[in-house]
Amino acid sequence: MTADPRERLARVALSSLFEPASPKVCLMVARLGAVELYDRLLADPSLDDLRATSATRLAALDPAGVLDRARRVGIRYVVPGDDEWPAQLMDLDGTETLNGMAGAPLGLWVRGAGSLVSLCERSVAVVGSRSCTPYGEGVAGDISAHLTRAGRTVVSGAAFGIDTAAHRAALGSAGPTVAVLAGGVDKAYPVRNTELLREICRDGVVVSEALPGWAPARHRFLARNRLIAALTRGTVVVEAAVRSGALNTASWAGLLHRVVMGVPGPVVNASSEGVHELLHAGTASLVSRGEHVEDLVGAVGEVLWTPPRAPETLFDLLRDDDRRVLEAVPVASAAPLASIARTAGVPTTAARESLLRLQEEGWVLGAAGAWRQAQDPAARRSQPSPVTAGASRGPAGHPRGAEGPP
Amino acid sequence: MTADPRERLARVALSSLFEPASPKVCLMVARLGAVELYDRLLADPSLDDLRATSATRLAALDPAGVLDRARRVGIRYVVPGDDEWPAQLMDLDGTETLNGMAGAPLGLWVRGAGSLVSLCERSVAVVGSRSCTPYGEGVAGDISAHLTRAGRTVVSGAAFGIDTAAHRAALGSAGPTVAVLAGGVDKAYPVRNTELLREICRDGVVVSEALPGWAPARHRFLARNRLIAALTRGTVVVEAAVRSGALNTASWAGLLHRVVMGVPGPVVNASSEGVHELLHAGTASLVSRGEHVEDLVGAVGEVLWTPPRAPETLFDLLRDDDRRVLEAVPVASAAPLASIARTAGVPTTAARESLLRLQEEGWVLGAAGAWRQAQDPAARRSQPSPVTAGASRGPAGHPRGAEGPP
Repeated sequence: MTADPRERLARVALSSLFEPASPKVCLMVARLGAVELYDRLLADPSLDDLRATSATRLAALDPAGVLDRARRVGIRYVVPGDDEWPAQLMDLDGTETLNGMAGAPLGLWVRGAGSLVSLCERSVAVVGSRSCTPYGEGVAGDISAHLTRAGRTVVSGAAFGIDTAAHRAALGSAGPTVAVLAGGVDKAYPVRNTELLREICRDGVVVSEALPGWAPARHRFLARNRLIAALTRGTVVVEAAVRSGALNTASWAGLLHRVVMGVPGPVVNASSEGVHELLHAGTASLVSRGEHVEDLVGAVGEVLWTPPRAPETLFDLLRDDDRRVLEAVPVASAAPLASIARTAGVPTTAARESLLRLQEEGWVLGAAGAWRQAQDPAARRSQPSPVTAGASRGPAGHPRGAEGPP
Repeated sequence: MTADPRERLARVALSSLFEPASPKVCLMVARLGAVELYDRLLADPSLDDLRATSATRLAALDPAGVLDRARRVGIRYVVPGDDEWPAQLMDLDGTETLNGMAGAPLGLWVRGAGSLVSLCERSVAVVGSRSCTPYGEGVAGDISAHLTRAGRTVVSGAAFGIDTAAHRAALGSAGPTVAVLAGGVDKAYPVRNTELLREICRDGVVVSEALPGWAPARHRFLARNRLIAALTRGTVVVEAAVRSGALNTASWAGLLHRVVMGVPGPVVNASSEGVHELLHAGTASLVSRGEHVEDLVGAVGEVLWTPPRAPETLFDLLRDDDRRVLEAVPVASAAPLASIARTAGVPTTAARESLLRLQEEGWVLGAAGAWRQAQDPAARRSQPSPVTAGASRGPAGHPRGAEGPP
């Protein structure tokens, strides 16, 4: 299904005349429709205000030409009514303004072989600082690769730093990825990411609401951030100083009731400070691995994240009372039963039963009514049980010995 | 005010006979009172069960002697009814059990010049891994020093690693600190912390519910953790692998409706993994600096934490419309007014007014009806405004230039 050609042309015209995310234009489109607003713009005195704003551009207006030139270089313009239009963008019509901006985009200029609507269906935004650390790049890459392998599309802004790391990791995991630009999709910004954007277009898409040829500018970056938040189910901020565009994307995600997530880092790094403030304020949920993200953006029952556990040790598997008695058995020289029972605080009969069980399993040695611990009990204590050994995952695999007593 | 001597003696007797945190003993004390429970213990058939458990210790029982020997080495026994008894310990009587443990302590053995009750009034626990990283030690030290300077007492467990760093930082900030031990307060554990515990006693206190002479053991560590949580307004976990005693303290703090806090770290460090799981689950609140802790444990209105902000730049202080026009002015070669107005998407008259203002402030240069940006506008953009320069705090002080466009 494709939208009415007059509708598409009217939207090209309006997006040529006005900057993105104008609440006033958005409101008038919602009230009159794009076609009628465009028709009335030239004559209706009640629209003098909008006409004045766009006067300098009205003279040069040529929507059919813009659309045609875009098509010839492989750029399509997706609007409501098209199959490729992601319905979730309409959530932007219901929010408060942020930095004086609001509203669904009039349309999106799209380049690339992917389908915007399918790509964004289960997508997650991974964004962060341009001036990031190698740590941040590494984590952004790990999380993006995980999400891509799990069949989710990573959406980001193709900026240097975290954005680039996120796109690169998605491509490296053989998954399509979506880049949302502040300027025209025919202009690589930053220029050094020209090759990255070309690669993204192979299976994914590069999108923007700015006309082809338009340069990125401060307010267009702010407008772009709302699209990243709106297209996705949630936004993961990997590194952000206290003043970072990634935090603006997080604010949009919050306004849109999307999941807002933050990856922590060393508290001494300024590049994690903005994320930590989000997390401290409770505005974002902490995620430290891809599974955490899936846990939060997945539908109920879709993913079940089981927190990692250290493997149980042989010591853990002892009965509570045996463990208590074992701890009352001296290591250096043997002690009589009565003394061990007193130290452990258990009846003598119970202590004897425990000692016999412990002897059978090789924990203690008994001779002439006195008991001492077997050789090297510490090593035994931290040895994983045969049942759970190897059941632990990744970095969680700590022997208990490393931590000492609880 | 001091408790009745019979009450104190009965509590010494009961704590000599039973291990700490026994829900059954706790329940009987609540029901009968310590004096009556002790009196009945020898004869009442309904107490056969408790008597059997303590039989091995009953023979050697000498509460008056224990109390007297403790006094002679400078150890006092604080019980309910004493001025020095921290009332918040009674919260332990209302909780569920954890690891089969529950209940307020019968009393606390105390060493040191400080007053336990005053020290704990506005106290915060700082706990974490024994096998910590230098990063964790540093952060534990920073937060503890901050809290100490803010007039709060840092409570911890005197273990190696995070605990030691927390106590040391408190002492280094000339503040008293409280160490809660799993074994007797006359025994330094770990032995290498003998000197640290001596220093703590100078202005603070070292406390335990274990009798003098008792060795630390696994279940006594677990019982000790509940005291750390109960004495304080909140518990900060600095580093903890997925299996760490610090997480047990955090669980107690949660059961007791105290504030549970976690300091994040690099997600690649196993020693932060347990903390990240707490934070991801929403069981703990993220804190990355002392102010965050104060923000959470302080009474309403007591502390007001203002998140750090980067300083405003001269560019930020421009009017929105001037900023938009400035971004439409070319850097390399001059452009005519009409072209600038069109690029910025504003009426020509508005563009002219903006350009004149920008020229006056040195942002643009106009000649023969054409305009270009003044030399080195990037440097100007990131320059902090004279008003806000220097107003930022610590690591937050980033020039906007470092982040690039938002």
